[in-house]
Amino acid sequence: MENTPLQAAIIGAGNVAWGLAPALEKGGMVTIKRVIARSMESASALASALGHNVEASTDTRGADRDVDLVIVAATDSAVEPLARASAGSQAIWIHTSGSVDTTVLAAASPRYGVIYPMQTFTRGVATDLSDAPIFIDAASPELADLLTRIALTVSANVRPADSAARRRLHCAAVFACNFTNHLWDIADGIARRAGSSIADFMPLIDETLRKAKAIGPHAGQTGPARRGAEGVMELHRLMLSPADAEIYRLLSQSIAKAYEQD
Amino acid sequence: MENTPLQAAIIGAGNVAWGLAPALEKGGMVTIKRVIARSMESASALASALGHNVEASTDTRGADRDVDLVIVAATDSAVEPLARASAGSQAIWIHTSGSVDTTVLAAASPRYGVIYPMQTFTRGVATDLSDAPIFIDAASPELADLLTRIALTVSANVRPADSAARRRLHCAAVFACNFTNHLWDIADGIARRAGSSIADFMPLIDETLRKAKAIGPHAGQTGPARRGAEGVMELHRLMLSPADAEIYRLLSQSIAKAYEQD
Repeated sequence: MENTPLQAAIIGAGNVAWGLAPALEKGGMVTIKRVIARSMESASALASALGHNVEASTDTRGADRDVDLVIVAATDSAVEPLARASAGSQAIWIHTSGSVDTTVLAAASPRYGVIYPMQTFTRGVATDLSDAPIFIDAASPELADLLTRIALTVSANVRPADSAARRRLHCAAVFACNFTNHLWDIADGIARRAGSSIADFMPLIDETLRKAKAIGPHAGQTGPARRGAEGVMELHRLMLSPADAEIYRLLSQSIAKAYEQD
Repeated sequence: MENTPLQAAIIGAGNVAWGLAPALEKGGMVTIKRVIARSMESASALASALGHNVEASTDTRGADRDVDLVIVAATDSAVEPLARASAGSQAIWIHTSGSVDTTVLAAASPRYGVIYPMQTFTRGVATDLSDAPIFIDAASPELADLLTRIALTVSANVRPADSAARRRLHCAAVFACNFTNHLWDIADGIARRAGSSIADFMPLIDETLRKAKAIGPHAGQTGPARRGAEGVMELHRLMLSPADAEIYRLLSQSIAKAYEQD
């Protein structure tokens, strides 16, 4: 098993599958043999992109046929039903989700685990995983060791995290990545009403991130809420939609609270 | 006036003054002659940092004595009182605020304007202004031209923006920079409870920003709220403090709304 790549099936052909499958293949310890998705079109697109003779299928029942490893990179809510429908599988089952318990996969096989890459994937955008943290959980120390070695072919930063820790990390990632990105989208909308766009804010965003890396986000905080500039905040809220004004109010309040001891 | 640098006084020795004064000096069209701050200590610290014979003072009344230009880089709420207290000044008065009306400075002098750098400054952290947008407003076209030429010694990206546009840009910057940074601080707190920290999230944040630059934040949005993964969102909210759970709820709702047509 050490020298021959593990034969794998991946269930899912969404953002995570598109990001992870090529990286695993490139790592050399895993060969993707089959892509299973809800539609044959999605399955075929990823199968073809993997660039050799990969089977495309919509049949989740046959997911583990002739493979050593099944990688469930599907919607969170699909993981448990998929595992239950594959009871008695001889393969190793892993999922890639931040918020699904590891043990959910015990329904499929006694050999199960998680490879959770802390990265954002978008189909069609090449993603560098080489320094992204990857968190591992597994049903046994031996399997944890195997999954760690597989993950190390993708990233230099591999660490254990149980279901509870992984859920926290995922939640933190939602703040650090998803919510942050959405604030940029809101900023874009406001800026466009002044003849500008988010592109003009990139030097500011770059500097904000550079400072967060250099001195940490807590020490780097600036702006009206940090200064307690009530008049400015009131002016800003007045120009926003009710929904954006409420976000403004809540985040300003949260900033004020974070520095009230200063 | 074209070849001799303008002699300037700067009122304020906070983050903006520390960021802007050295950049203006380096540009060669402005020489800072005097730094005025509430405390002599602050004024002296910046005056010394400017590295030549700069006067430090706490006397705002004498701000415009023997100078061509007074740069008000003080707290927003201080700008109007400062201008009123200097009625009849012969100098050009400018401020650097995103949210204070340009005309507030008319109380000091008929020659007034704004140089608003769209950048975040933190005292002690060197800041690159060379590609940061700088927005100009002025009482006359001639003065707008002068301020534009001064700003162009600092950044290649100089544009006009009246008070209303500047206020919008400032509000957008609060979302793009201040709120974003605070979300990283919240993420840091959550991650620490799972034995991690914001440092682990930097590859994810880098990728999020890279994607926002490549395809725009709207197209790059990922995460539970984008997918409508209610179960995950509920799990996340349950592990958060009531204040953070409310931020989570509101931003998730805002994301859902932004994509409801999809």
